[in-house]
Amino acid sequence: MNIQVIACINEARSDDLQHKTVIVIDVLRATSTMLTALAGGCRTLVPVETVSQAKSLQSPGTLLGGERSCKKIPGFDFGNSPLEYTPEAVSGKTLIMTTTNGTRAIHKARKADHVLIGAFLNAGACARKAASLDQEIVLVCSGAQDVFSLEDGLCAGLLVHELLQLSGCDPDSPAAAQAVGDFGLAMLHAYRQVQDRLTEILLSCAGGRRLIKLGFRDDVTYCSQIDLLPLAPVVRAGKLEPEHASSSL
Amino acid sequence: MNIQVIACINEARSDDLQHKTVIVIDVLRATSTMLTALAGGCRTLVPVETVSQAKSLQSPGTLLGGERSCKKIPGFDFGNSPLEYTPEAVSGKTLIMTTTNGTRAIHKARKADHVLIGAFLNAGACARKAASLDQEIVLVCSGAQDVFSLEDGLCAGLLVHELLQLSGCDPDSPAAAQAVGDFGLAMLHAYRQVQDRLTEILLSCAGGRRLIKLGFRDDVTYCSQIDLLPLAPVVRAGKLEPEHASSSL
Repeated sequence: MNIQVIACINEARSDDLQHKTVIVIDVLRATSTMLTALAGGCRTLVPVETVSQAKSLQSPGTLLGGERSCKKIPGFDFGNSPLEYTPEAVSGKTLIMTTTNGTRAIHKARKADHVLIGAFLNAGACARKAASLDQEIVLVCSGAQDVFSLEDGLCAGLLVHELLQLSGCDPDSPAAAQAVGDFGLAMLHAYRQVQDRLTEILLSCAGGRRLIKLGFRDDVTYCSQIDLLPLAPVVRAGKLEPEHASSSL
Repeated sequence: MNIQVIACINEARSDDLQHKTVIVIDVLRATSTMLTALAGGCRTLVPVETVSQAKSLQSPGTLLGGERSCKKIPGFDFGNSPLEYTPEAVSGKTLIMTTTNGTRAIHKARKADHVLIGAFLNAGACARKAASLDQEIVLVCSGAQDVFSLEDGLCAGLLVHELLQLSGCDPDSPAAAQAVGDFGLAMLHAYRQVQDRLTEILLSCAGGRRLIKLGFRDDVTYCSQIDLLPLAPVVRAGKLEPEHASSSL
């Protein structure tokens, strides 16, 4: 097994992701929100890069969600808070979403053979799905404003841990060091150091502090939960559908 | 106290380092080797970027040291193994050194107010010196081949830990999270996770494996020792001299 972790979206190059399985991670909050919407019964989720793309896809029966600068976009049905995406609001609906980093990262991964959506909320299911595809795996941390975000790095560390265990590789072995590479190892070690106080760590990192200031403390706490949502959606033809995920579990 | 960690040399921009105290880290092996030479009595150490610069500075009584692709440069007196730089070989001498990443990182930091040389070997002394200068501190991990190196990141994590403690800031506090930034925090957590088995970790990371293959296992073991050399040399007018360091301790 070969696992690479990319520190933030502007370090990922589309061509390098060809023939690989990519897991896009944007814990605060894009991938956590997408998972919540899909778990809540959203039928199809379409991640797009720009606000105008989102608006051009609007039709009766579709909902628009997303953010710019962590805030809801004018005219959209939802912002980027996972707690807005209740089953009552999204069940059976098609949802068009655009966020600053998460949907950009998904677009950047378009040349990969498989693109999965990862967060703490679905780490176990996501790792199992990725391992089952039997390819080189690249974890793309979205980051924020083109710099590394701790929450995404720690989630990558958890995924590395799960992937190594699934492949029967002791995370402390020299074989693991070789399979994961130096940056992935750093994230693995960091995750293991703070795994028992993830919520506290996420509340104090840059992204958590920004969200608390904007009134979204509960989002941060929610997004720090591991394996709450056992689904592993895959992007197919630009869309996320929950059934593809559950069929593989 | 404000502490920033830069993941590798190509992410550092000279202009961003102005008015700051920079600690250049290249654990395997440039900064470890420079510290060893200075501790061994080398009078003046001149880090230069290119082989031709090194040769142009050669004169009777000077020694040339350095590497390209981890190997000694033809015509040079020493390679980049710290174990070559014994007191017998370097005491009282002027040493011109060029390495692939470490000396490049020093050059990149030229606009900083103060440039210090950091490694596990001198972490405590280096942190004390940096803290005493009372400026914003930037830790520049040299990395290898323009990517992050685990050993440099872990050394940055140790330095962050020491710097926080020197400033009376609990490394687990929200204040520490704010002072250090997300990437520095990740390195701090990773370091604390593996601090009791640093030698093993350094032997298994990419840089360690490369050096073992080339016959330098003992170098890796040597460079993983914390606080063996209590000196904190500062680059002044392009040169490193040990007395500047010891006078501040």
